[in-house]
Amino acid sequence: MQGFGVHTSMWTMNWDREGAERAVAGAVHYKMDFIEIPMLNPPAVDTEHTRALLEANGLRAICSLGLPEAAWPSRDPEKAIDFLKLAMDKTKALGGEALSGVTYGGIGERSGFPPTEAELDNVARALDTVSKYATSIGLLFGIEPVNRYETHLINTGWQAVAMIERIGSGNIFVHLDTYHMNIEEKGAANGILDARDHLRYIHLSESDRGTPGAGTCDWDEIFATLSAIGFDGGLAMESFINMPPEIGYGLSVWRPVAKDHAEVMDNGLPFLRNKARQYKLI
Amino acid sequence: MQGFGVHTSMWTMNWDREGAERAVAGAVHYKMDFIEIPMLNPPAVDTEHTRALLEANGLRAICSLGLPEAAWPSRDPEKAIDFLKLAMDKTKALGGEALSGVTYGGIGERSGFPPTEAELDNVARALDTVSKYATSIGLLFGIEPVNRYETHLINTGWQAVAMIERIGSGNIFVHLDTYHMNIEEKGAANGILDARDHLRYIHLSESDRGTPGAGTCDWDEIFATLSAIGFDGGLAMESFINMPPEIGYGLSVWRPVAKDHAEVMDNGLPFLRNKARQYKLI
Amino acid sequence: MQGFGVHTSMWTMNWDREGAERAVAGAVHYKMDFIEIPMLNPPAVDTEHTRALLEANGLRAICSLGLPEAAWPSRDPEKAIDFLKLAMDKTKALGGEALSGVTYGGIGERSGFPPTEAELDNVARALDTVSKYATSIGLLFGIEPVNRYETHLINTGWQAVAMIERIGSGNIFVHLDTYHMNIEEKGAANGILDARDHLRYIHLSESDRGTPGAGTCDWDEIFATLSAIGFDGGLAMESFINMPPEIGYGLSVWRPVAKDHAEVMDNGLPFLRNKARQYKLI
Amino acid sequence: MQGFGVHTSMWTMNWDREGAERAVAGAVHYKMDFIEIPMLNPPAVDTEHTRALLEANGLRAICSLGLPEAAWPSRDPEKAIDFLKLAMDKTKALGGEALSGVTYGGIGERSGFPPTEAELDNVARALDTVSKYATSIGLLFGIEPVNRYETHLINTGWQAVAMIERIGSGNIFVHLDTYHMNIEEKGAANGILDARDHLRYIHLSESDRGTPGAGTCDWDEIFATLSAIGFDGGLAMESFINMPPEIGYGLSVWRPVAKDHAEVMDNGLPFLRNKARQYKLI
Repeated sequence: MQGFGVHTSMWTMNWDREGAERAVAGAVHYKMDFIEIPMLNPPAVDTEHTRALLEANGLRAICSLGLPEAAWPSRDPEKAIDFLKLAMDKTKALGGEALSGVTYGGIGERSGFPPTEAELDNVARALDTVSKYATSIGLLFGIEPVNRYETHLINTGWQAVAMIERIGSGNIFVHLDTYHMNIEEKGAANGILDARDHLRYIHLSESDRGTPGAGTCDWDEIFATLSAIGFDGGLAMESFINMPPEIGYGLSVWRPVAKDHAEVMDNGLPFLRNKARQYKLI
Repeated sequence: MQGFGVHTSMWTMNWDREGAERAVAGAVHYKMDFIEIPMLNPPAVDTEHTRALLEANGLRAICSLGLPEAAWPSRDPEKAIDFLKLAMDKTKALGGEALSGVTYGGIGERSGFPPTEAELDNVARALDTVSKYATSIGLLFGIEPVNRYETHLINTGWQAVAMIERIGSGNIFVHLDTYHMNIEEKGAANGILDARDHLRYIHLSESDRGTPGAGTCDWDEIFATLSAIGFDGGLAMESFINMPPEIGYGLSVWRPVAKDHAEVMDNGLPFLRNKARQYKLI
Repeated sequence: MQGFGVHTSMWTMNWDREGAERAVAGAVHYKMDFIEIPMLNPPAVDTEHTRALLEANGLRAICSLGLPEAAWPSRDPEKAIDFLKLAMDKTKALGGEALSGVTYGGIGERSGFPPTEAELDNVARALDTVSKYATSIGLLFGIEPVNRYETHLINTGWQAVAMIERIGSGNIFVHLDTYHMNIEEKGAANGILDARDHLRYIHLSESDRGTPGAGTCDWDEIFATLSAIGFDGGLAMESFINMPPEIGYGLSVWRPVAKDHAEVMDNGLPFLRNKARQYKLI
Repeated sequence: MQGFGVHTSMWTMNWDREGAERAVAGAVHYKMDFIEIPMLNPPAVDTEHTRALLEANGLRAICSLGLPEAAWPSRDPEKAIDFLKLAMDKTKALGGEALSGVTYGGIGERSGFPPTEAELDNVARALDTVSKYATSIGLLFGIEPVNRYETHLINTGWQAVAMIERIGSGNIFVHLDTYHMNIEEKGAANGILDARDHLRYIHLSESDRGTPGAGTCDWDEIFATLSAIGFDGGLAMESFINMPPEIGYGLSVWRPVAKDHAEVMDNGLPFLRNKARQYKLI
């Protein structure tokens, strides 16, 4: 989990053979160090095919997900544990280094109320178990705070840290996302500062999830703070153009937020890479 | 609708006598030009009491709302028209100058899909009727784009203008909100630029809806653009600390986003007023 | 004076035949609409050669200068008038549209005291005469505020406007420069706002005069404000890599402020063009 | 050298008894932790008077200066050493903790050329000697990069570090200034990042040296980076309203950059303190 990568949503949200091939070819074309693979439906992933593709192209991978309602740990930690263990086995089998994302709930999970102690305890119990499982099979395991509309459980860097402290576990990392930080943190930098001891991965996503550099994110502040804390984890560009219905409601993008794929890759990607170089992060 | 005002959520979200008195006293203490009154439950508003309070204190008012699900115009324009007409009558009766907000739907209304032509036509029909009614009783009528999670219908300045053009009506104004612009616009200024010909009112709300000046909004860019287009409408500070359950889910604030009321009023308000003066807006 | 251009300092600071040919070839390669030609030594300019080059390549041009100490209008308006008239004749002869820059003094002129009324009157007298001459030969004439270290006379947009009002002349335009605005204006936008009625030309120069996009200038704020005032003048990228000794002291660049020419043209230029497009300026 | 302080230029630039009393009273009124005293004319400082004032009011102090031309170390290291040793004795005698500023040259020293090895060696020799003297009497000793127009010797954080490495000395600290960083660094944060291992003191000065918060400095980026590197040195607000002629030329402020003293202290100071608190620096 180092270097500069990209979420494969740029090429596919269905991780079938055809999608995987298109995504890997794209990532190679743009000289990525790693890709992020959506693990929304673990049983459907052909891990042998993906592993072969990654190896053939010298790409590293991380998998990410949000949980289906039947496996929300706030309500049913055991179901969540089962789901996450399967996702981890699949991640391991395809050669991934980590499983992360909204591993503590659903994308769009909102009770309508602040999180209760019982909910947080349930989440902590599930995460504790699966993080130990991750360690046992040699995977890293992360949690990604997302904005208030996508979850009521963990919206900020400090809340992610509080969850890690609740668990008392040293083997869970924080995975931030600039799109969510732009909404939730008191200045994007504060999310990085609050989570600095646990931060291993960050989504570089513009304020509207469109073309990086053409929104309201303050990239200089973000990269400067990453550089200042000595961040050496993975930098993953994320933009959402293609989305399957099962996460469309949670993400709530109702219009194209970039003119096209080329605008993101040919304007947004060089912008991010130039900034990352300016701050000596790559 | 000119000068510097405040949304009364700083003091109350229940516009009963007690809430109204507390809010008006607060607004007077902080030398506001006007207040924004939540008109979430029109029948419950004691217009005589409010009118007397406003007159006694030399305060102007604008009312705002989001529609209850039973009156969403995308589904039932006639119900929406009835609800909005009543809200307008109440607004007029209490001495208000305008009715605005999410007047085109619910706060939290999301179909899960991009808006359909049928939905937009329904909304246009309702807005056309009520905007004419507004004119007939001497009120201004506005529509406020909100972010993708609070509606799937109108998220940006240009979408608000497109709705106005769909209606073909000259008597609907655009009401922007910096909190939503921070998520939806390609640079907050672009919302102002796109809506400039129709913009009459703007919510000054920080990126996390907390203390203005302590988030990710680029206030210099926002005020500079307002100044550059010759904006002379109302500037209304908005922050959410007290919220009734009926809008809590839509707004999705699960934690205190400011230390307390004093932090918003004593740090955030001077910050905004200094910036507004710097750009010659007040 | 419209479209997107570049100061030819990117290729040469000596406007001899060889320098002119290199600069024009470069500007054509990067698809510029116009070039800015340094008119530091008017007698030395081979206007026929330049005119033929420009015409052959379909490029427009504007000339710019700072005055030599012997021709500082604050001290000797008549000498300044003679110098500027010659520069204008040369500008006209090579097919240029305008003469601008520090036309009111020297680059590095500082008395050690605030400008006196006598100095400002002398400057006004010279500018009045030469602006009329410019009009008589069909040229535009501009004044560029520069920072406090490069002149004590005109540092801000409002001071440029005050000079125009002192002259009472309608045929002088204001030429801003983002590098100087970054030091002198209360928010870069304020220079644009103050000069808006007279603004026809702007240098897009980074805060250290290096690669645009890699400094402290707030480009979103700058482009948003330009867009908001309806700016339709010339946008000229400016960066200083090659400098002759006669302006080196005034500009005071003692180290390379960009890695090389390619960094400016291949990173900085796309950055500026993307931003200009984002705000619908080109 | 910790906490939040202020340069006494807010009240006086003449450190005579009357000026010292006015400055100390002001600093106490605004609850400063320390003051920065201009040591421009060391023999004239009444150290007993200042020491008594500081002790009576529980204020700490740091002294700063730029060298007169006769004592520029680039030309005459021995004269510089004599001058700086006297300034240090005076600093020690009045109870100061450190001597800093443009201790390596004059404010306005510019040869017209990049610094030569001979100049830098001369400077290094002088600084080495005086830094050892500082240590011997229990004082800290700093160097402040200033912009290209105020010196040709050290303009950036990395150049200050390069000078420290040239000396090979561990007892010189870097003193940054946001006003200069805004001109010289590739993003203000980069000066902090480059100097992080040596940074002990920073001037918080707006881009035009006027009211903090009303210029082009990106304060969130600056404070975030300070917080991220674990900065625990002194934060000193600096604004120039009153200036003696001997530094007027070097600083080149030709107009009031703030409406008045009150604007700086009542708007700018709370702005900076709020930001410093937001990033947990005070």
